[in-house]
Amino acid sequence: MGPDPAVAAVRVAVRRALTGLPPGALVLAACSGGADSLALAGALAFEAPRAGLHAGAVTVDHGLQEGSADRAAQLVRLLADLGLDPAGSIAVTVGTEGGPENAAREARYAALDQAAARWNAAAVMLGHTRDDQAETVLLGLARGSGARSLAGMPPAFTRPEGEVRYLRPLLGVDRGTARKACLAMGLEPWDDPHNLDPGFARVRVRREALPALEKALGPGVAEALARTARMLRDDAEALDGLAQRALADAEADGEADGEGGAGGGTDGQGGADGSDGAGAAGGGDGGDGRTGEGGGLRVEVLEGLPRAVRTRVLRMAAVAAGSPPGTLAAVHVEEVDRLVTDWRGQRHVDLPGGVRAFRRCGRLLFGPA
Amino acid sequence: MGPDPAVAAVRVAVRRALTGLPPGALVLAACSGGADSLALAGALAFEAPRAGLHAGAVTVDHGLQEGSADRAAQLVRLLADLGLDPAGSIAVTVGTEGGPENAAREARYAALDQAAARWNAAAVMLGHTRDDQAETVLLGLARGSGARSLAGMPPAFTRPEGEVRYLRPLLGVDRGTARKACLAMGLEPWDDPHNLDPGFARVRVRREALPALEKALGPGVAEALARTARMLRDDAEALDGLAQRALADAEADGEADGEGGAGGGTDGQGGADGSDGAGAAGGGDGGDGRTGEGGGLRVEVLEGLPRAVRTRVLRMAAVAAGSPPGTLAAVHVEEVDRLVTDWRGQRHVDLPGGVRAFRRCGRLLFGPA
Repeated sequence: MGPDPAVAAVRVAVRRALTGLPPGALVLAACSGGADSLALAGALAFEAPRAGLHAGAVTVDHGLQEGSADRAAQLVRLLADLGLDPAGSIAVTVGTEGGPENAAREARYAALDQAAARWNAAAVMLGHTRDDQAETVLLGLARGSGARSLAGMPPAFTRPEGEVRYLRPLLGVDRGTARKACLAMGLEPWDDPHNLDPGFARVRVRREALPALEKALGPGVAEALARTARMLRDDAEALDGLAQRALADAEADGEADGEGGAGGGTDGQGGADGSDGAGAAGGGDGGDGRTGEGGGLRVEVLEGLPRAVRTRVLRMAAVAAGSPPGTLAAVHVEEVDRLVTDWRGQRHVDLPGGVRAFRRCGRLLFGPA
Repeated sequence: MGPDPAVAAVRVAVRRALTGLPPGALVLAACSGGADSLALAGALAFEAPRAGLHAGAVTVDHGLQEGSADRAAQLVRLLADLGLDPAGSIAVTVGTEGGPENAAREARYAALDQAAARWNAAAVMLGHTRDDQAETVLLGLARGSGARSLAGMPPAFTRPEGEVRYLRPLLGVDRGTARKACLAMGLEPWDDPHNLDPGFARVRVRREALPALEKALGPGVAEALARTARMLRDDAEALDGLAQRALADAEADGEADGEGGAGGGTDGQGGADGSDGAGAAGGGDGGDGRTGEGGGLRVEVLEGLPRAVRTRVLRMAAVAAGSPPGTLAAVHVEEVDRLVTDWRGQRHVDLPGGVRAFRRCGRLLFGPA
């Protein structure tokens, strides 16, 4: 008799994510004690040795709830009992920057980076499921900033600050299956009361918006959202790649085109990781990549680009010139685009961060306002 | 004293859409008598003469409700009173194909095509607002088929069956503003009881899903969705254009590469118009564009493409070979993609429409199953 179907589904997903890791490497499961990450830890403990790898686990104690240290210690014992070695907990202090969700996430990833470095892990696995992905896509909708904000969480990424590769093997597994797998493995999940707190946008999306969408559109919405995210991620990667090349093209022939291009480019991986903290959300935090007056972008090159590519090029150039990626909005970029496509002698366009875009002698220039 | 702000907003939107039409041309407002299209008709009556154009209006009597003929006659009198000339109604018989919403839409567009042809109109304006756009995006989410299904309704399109250009000037105007404009112009809108019938997915989205999303994510969701649609439409156009060229590239050097490329391509406009009936939803309904065994696509070209482009190329080729665009799903295309990127001697992939994809001698071929 084979394993429970839910257990099998989680194990297969983890097994697939393990391919390509160097033999003998250590893989850590990041585990909160919730059903998703506990199922992940159980499956990793089973699959890693069969793939010639070592499995460990780490839990982050955010110290935000009464008794969290005790719970972390108890969870570490459970993880060690599963055969995960090393198994440890890291206590963090959560700041307030960017709101409570952001601050907790930043602290968590910093701790995971640190654990991975200390234990020399090749990868850290996160327990995000297809339902988490669907929620992320809907949260991205509210930003309304195109393919990137709808592309959800990437299945694999590296943090700009860290070295270790993060993997999300369960993005194709739904939350119900993860919970079933957890129970079938005899593991008792801990239900974080934060997951019921309607003060969090994600909780409202999970408990109200997604059910309303399912009711309106029929079942399968979470799956459709996750599939959409995957496709839009591919789109965004292809278009960002094109924009990188087009930027270099538009800069060529200029005199001060050095750092402008390379510095301003989102690298597809960093920028992709919209859900993982402000640190990873931008790519190119600018300042010194300023395009000098001698350089700039050749309008004639820009004019020949499809709008989807051109607006990305303009965005990259503005960010390289020091406009903060988090506040530089689509409407700003559209305004700059009008200097290219609807030029009637506009004087300039002022952008966040004190950056000014203007057109002169067939070139689009970005300088201080 | 200027006009009411809502009236001004609708007029400005209509005025912008009128630019570029040939002097003296006739523009028709398609008017149901609802607030959105009545505001559109009123604004068109005001703006067209000032732009050196003629304005007319047409209403379609679907004959689905008691007294619809009387209501149509009454509306025509109102439209004529606004100065719209010609103003007329067309009675249609709604079939059942593709469900009631689809059948009504098909009948409506056929009637509008006919009216435009009879009166030699240069354009037909539709009253869809930003809220309609947001609903369309959410309805597209349920399909989960990527950028195209989220790109909503295009601001301008031509039906494959017709000649006239359709315009949607109000996609940036919200429904509340359109209603206010209508009332401020002294026009009394008719509220279609269908707009309250929860049997329609669109009504459920409007009345349940969107409010739940607004509650979870904060106000401005409809606007974010409309903005997202615009950006994803640009993305889809750029990527479809790239895919067209890549398809020609991959086919080059083959012996039977004639119609395969051109026949299978969605043309960006036809395919874009996902919301406007099955007829416009595909592009290339295939059959005769079959890629012969001598031709096919060079794997070496396909391998070098970003996945977003490659999957579009594969989709175009499969449709050209006779796979119906409506049933050919992302999962099918992904399976074909594995013949390129994860080739381990798979025998073939069977696709809807009796089309079989297989790999031979460095080429990907599509033939009968």
